[in-house]
Amino acid sequence: MIRFECDYAEGAHPQILERLAQTNFEKTKGYGEDEYCENARRIIRRLCQTESADVHFLVGGTQTNTTVIASILRPHQGVVSAATGHINIHETGAIEATGHKVLALPTENSKLNASQIEKVFQEHWNDVNREHLVQPGMVYLSNPTEEGVIYKRQELQAIHGVCRQYNLPLFLDGARLGYGLVAENNDLTLPDIAKLCDVFYIGGTKVGALFGEALVITNDSMKKDFRYFIKQRGGLLAKGRLLGIQFETLFENGLYFDMARHAVRMAMLIRDAFCSQGFRFLRESPTNQQFPVLSEEQIKMLAQKYTFELWSKVDERHTAVRFCTSWATREVDVQMLIKDILSVKT
Amino acid sequence: MIRFECDYAEGAHPQILERLAQTNFEKTKGYGEDEYCENARRIIRRLCQTESADVHFLVGGTQTNTTVIASILRPHQGVVSAATGHINIHETGAIEATGHKVLALPTENSKLNASQIEKVFQEHWNDVNREHLVQPGMVYLSNPTEEGVIYKRQELQAIHGVCRQYNLPLFLDGARLGYGLVAENNDLTLPDIAKLCDVFYIGGTKVGALFGEALVITNDSMKKDFRYFIKQRGGLLAKGRLLGIQFETLFENGLYFDMARHAVRMAMLIRDAFCSQGFRFLRESPTNQQFPVLSEEQIKMLAQKYTFELWSKVDERHTAVRFCTSWATREVDVQMLIKDILSVKT
Amino acid sequence: MIRFECDYAEGAHPQILERLAQTNFEKTKGYGEDEYCENARRIIRRLCQTESADVHFLVGGTQTNTTVIASILRPHQGVVSAATGHINIHETGAIEATGHKVLALPTENSKLNASQIEKVFQEHWNDVNREHLVQPGMVYLSNPTEEGVIYKRQELQAIHGVCRQYNLPLFLDGARLGYGLVAENNDLTLPDIAKLCDVFYIGGTKVGALFGEALVITNDSMKKDFRYFIKQRGGLLAKGRLLGIQFETLFENGLYFDMARHAVRMAMLIRDAFCSQGFRFLRESPTNQQFPVLSEEQIKMLAQKYTFELWSKVDERHTAVRFCTSWATREVDVQMLIKDILSVKT
Amino acid sequence: MIRFECDYAEGAHPQILERLAQTNFEKTKGYGEDEYCENARRIIRRLCQTESADVHFLVGGTQTNTTVIASILRPHQGVVSAATGHINIHETGAIEATGHKVLALPTENSKLNASQIEKVFQEHWNDVNREHLVQPGMVYLSNPTEEGVIYKRQELQAIHGVCRQYNLPLFLDGARLGYGLVAENNDLTLPDIAKLCDVFYIGGTKVGALFGEALVITNDSMKKDFRYFIKQRGGLLAKGRLLGIQFETLFENGLYFDMARHAVRMAMLIRDAFCSQGFRFLRESPTNQQFPVLSEEQIKMLAQKYTFELWSKVDERHTAVRFCTSWATREVDVQMLIKDILSVKT
Repeated sequence: MIRFECDYAEGAHPQILERLAQTNFEKTKGYGEDEYCENARRIIRRLCQTESADVHFLVGGTQTNTTVIASILRPHQGVVSAATGHINIHETGAIEATGHKVLALPTENSKLNASQIEKVFQEHWNDVNREHLVQPGMVYLSNPTEEGVIYKRQELQAIHGVCRQYNLPLFLDGARLGYGLVAENNDLTLPDIAKLCDVFYIGGTKVGALFGEALVITNDSMKKDFRYFIKQRGGLLAKGRLLGIQFETLFENGLYFDMARHAVRMAMLIRDAFCSQGFRFLRESPTNQQFPVLSEEQIKMLAQKYTFELWSKVDERHTAVRFCTSWATREVDVQMLIKDILSVKT
Repeated sequence: MIRFECDYAEGAHPQILERLAQTNFEKTKGYGEDEYCENARRIIRRLCQTESADVHFLVGGTQTNTTVIASILRPHQGVVSAATGHINIHETGAIEATGHKVLALPTENSKLNASQIEKVFQEHWNDVNREHLVQPGMVYLSNPTEEGVIYKRQELQAIHGVCRQYNLPLFLDGARLGYGLVAENNDLTLPDIAKLCDVFYIGGTKVGALFGEALVITNDSMKKDFRYFIKQRGGLLAKGRLLGIQFETLFENGLYFDMARHAVRMAMLIRDAFCSQGFRFLRESPTNQQFPVLSEEQIKMLAQKYTFELWSKVDERHTAVRFCTSWATREVDVQMLIKDILSVKT
Repeated sequence: MIRFECDYAEGAHPQILERLAQTNFEKTKGYGEDEYCENARRIIRRLCQTESADVHFLVGGTQTNTTVIASILRPHQGVVSAATGHINIHETGAIEATGHKVLALPTENSKLNASQIEKVFQEHWNDVNREHLVQPGMVYLSNPTEEGVIYKRQELQAIHGVCRQYNLPLFLDGARLGYGLVAENNDLTLPDIAKLCDVFYIGGTKVGALFGEALVITNDSMKKDFRYFIKQRGGLLAKGRLLGIQFETLFENGLYFDMARHAVRMAMLIRDAFCSQGFRFLRESPTNQQFPVLSEEQIKMLAQKYTFELWSKVDERHTAVRFCTSWATREVDVQMLIKDILSVKT
Repeated sequence: MIRFECDYAEGAHPQILERLAQTNFEKTKGYGEDEYCENARRIIRRLCQTESADVHFLVGGTQTNTTVIASILRPHQGVVSAATGHINIHETGAIEATGHKVLALPTENSKLNASQIEKVFQEHWNDVNREHLVQPGMVYLSNPTEEGVIYKRQELQAIHGVCRQYNLPLFLDGARLGYGLVAENNDLTLPDIAKLCDVFYIGGTKVGALFGEALVITNDSMKKDFRYFIKQRGGLLAKGRLLGIQFETLFENGLYFDMARHAVRMAMLIRDAFCSQGFRFLRESPTNQQFPVLSEEQIKMLAQKYTFELWSKVDERHTAVRFCTSWATREVDVQMLIKDILSVKT
């Protein structure tokens, strides 16, 4: 069975394991106050071209989303998100468990846009009974989105503009950020994101680390006491250096981007194969997740050799499925898949 | 500087890193549903002599405590704990953040006893206005305690008896369980604990793993839907096999206990040195944490070469400090420390 | 200005005030443990034809909804509700503040139906990744709905059937229950509701009391410790008898239904006037709330003499508005309104 | 049976009922936006000599405490309180249910003092591991305390000074404030309290109203969006004017203070009787609650004719009990009680 169902099916890039082994016997301070974390913070700040950002390392995405959102909102506020957003549908209500509603907006393509955020804000503040409603308190988006789509710089600038105007903090979930940054036609850079968002994270778990997310806080008012929040939500890793060492390794020589590029190149090969056979796609994704629409028979056929995820029913007889690639996806496996795609009856 | 301030200052036992490297390129299912986790579960169930227990792997202690306690209590209930309990003072109010009060009881030696639990329960149910009070809903204890003390089998049996009688689930935090199980005069075994507690965990983070806690649920009524709780609290590691591989390695050949024994042996050497010089101790600890009471001058002297934690003021001029050992504590460092202890002016 | 914007613009039926005055100097036990509450409970149980129900009195609707829902759900569960449900949009996220997601379903007419509830349930349990989703844990509906529509017995039976089959508790918010029970074509009775729901309440605040909701719990498993929940959520009125006295007065001689009938009769007069002029309605409501669709000019004209609520935009030029009647609505005011409706240009 | 067990055993002062009856048929806006509330706010601001305070009316004390505290604290913060504080022991964990720990301090006489607050603050900020601890985020005290004791102006000034210095908001629970303000030797005034506290409330429920607490917010930063918080916690009374009318009646001509004076005078008679017989008291209370220490036989004897509360065991054979008076306590009943006290065997 060849696995394409997710981008966290393997361990980590071997360089990471080597660095963990090399440093294994050193004794350091715990909870992220060691030199490796400090150095990783420096590197990330440099890449983001922001000297003043706070950088924290957390273990996973749900934990990071919960910790950030609960730290920003006051009790009567909710977080604006695409209805397809990870926090709205794939975290077992973790945000609500901290007391806050997810204000879910329908989208055409899994991306929020500036004007719909503005509309939510204005409708709220124009309502004479607004005290009976949840107040929109911040905006959450993911890039790439859960469906592999990326924001253009202009789109993010427009959202930033609305957020700035209405004083809504903007939080970008970058669990798969690497794949977005290296995608064809992407025009967003880390410094752009650092400038346009109040807080965001660079995902490690799904981009070649064992685990870990690097959270970057650029808005001064959100920096205060943040380590308390991490601890309270169970995210302060005792051996924090494990995170520092990983992010050092990922970013000191561009390994992170190399791995993302490999994964995206593999995904494009898969995409092109489906395309050439005339398959439709749920979304036009330039990143490591591809969502071709297959019939039941086609699914059955491919499922004999490959694992992939059933994503969503498109109509009675068709389902969008997800093929994922990663740093560890072997080209030989992709070539075999392509051959099988090309032989699928359409 | 030689570090004795905690038991999580190093990485992990080299065997663990080796196993992670060996398995690194395998592709497995995520979220703990892989074969490594399954096998680690089998091993742990066997060691605990309980075929029917559910075993889950979480990343850290605060996360585990929060997830378990919030899964058991109903909204009006609180958890009974020693005032010195980790959940009461070292988790930034994580339990309260899930909506529950910690019903903290004073103790003489950091251990709860059966009769004080019974008294709390009876006082509550005898109060005619009890609906205005937090109802005691479960009991939390740690073994060893935060101050290195261990429960005797008879003590745990008595607590179990009271809990059973009053239908209070009993939860044992075993973040340092290994050190307790190998301590001199310990008479508690894993099967005992599995029989006497409704839920408990075997700590990895502080006993030689990179990270991870193995949660064992023996009470059927607490098993239902537990993976939802783990996910909601941010504890469901995407690459769950990292935990399975570690616990397999720790328990398939007794490595866990070997490491604990080494750490305790080192701690006993330190204890004996302080003893021989006539130092008092905050608690009589047979485990890897030692709490001698030092004067300011003594602290200053030892702090020149060693790191250790200032634990609690004992009187105006004396402070109890904590020396911790681990699987990686080198005997040569301990010998140097002993020499310095013996030369401290008392 | 003649007020039609809500059904809580006045005090209470004079008989209620008289009874409060008559009993004012008596000294009773607090917190609902007095004889007036006890008697009101007996009367309500008799009307519901259920000897074993628990009856509690709370002050308001949001409080009651929050207390009930948080008492039933476990942390990973959410409450299924119509998207238009009060808990979803008019309680400032009170349910989320207790940690639970509202699983909001779109509806055509503000009513849930059995098959959509079944679909939600089955989709959840058929999802292999369901542990990442909020589990549907109970069903909330209101009768009449927020838009004045009532459930037929058969509809509630079907919903009850699905809930029973899937073990989902069914909670009916009856903040305006009186108006539903006396509506033309209504075929639901209090005993029906008591039989079909696990818990429901009979609203006083919006049906002629000063304030208060009578909560009826028929499901044994939800009765336990309920007074703790009321106290914790701030709903245990110190002078609880104020609630007992009111509900005694409302139900001992049918005053509650007399008031509801008056209000509905007034509403039907208003409805008929709009109808005769050819106005559309947002919903076909047989209860005390009417939602005619007006143009901006028509709104402007009527707003000169009457207050009513702007409910929702229907299209660029039309808005559904709400006219509410109550026990205290004077027929002379209604006649004046009718005259003005009949003279509105359409 | 003559009831002395609490100060909420009767209805309300007859003037309040009269005013409710007079205004009963008026139609007003809901949720506290009517003219009666507006006028009551003006009166209260004038009495407090603060033109800029926000005044809100809530139904009960637990609700008010919860709403205020949850609106001020950030997730990692707790509220400093006397261990005997109402929020710590008589609200079924309502504060914890909003996610926050009560940092309970032992007291000698149920009052906090400035230096112990300062110590808590300094210990927290001097702890190098403070991120693992709950951060003290505000101070809660009640005046009179739950045990009837009052703060002197100098004491409150000192507490205010510490709170100001460390930027800790100060919240005063005045559920029984009236009794404190009229107590012998009291030197605190409403304007003092408004100046020294960031937020406080003037209790109605326990001082002659049917129900209701008038919350006064003087700190600008806490005023924002407060009505959302009230709604979310279930405290926004639909017929809000019921609160406005009551507080207008209580404060427009001093009725509130007249009632408090009567109750305190009655309490002093009871106190003097116990004193003259040589009874000890749990606390020296100049307010409407008296806590004599009685033997079991004495309790049994008095309990034949009077209800009073068993407060706390003092030793094996003695219990402190509570006698409460109110605006409605009849002097003839007090005289009978006194006679019986004087005949008790001591």
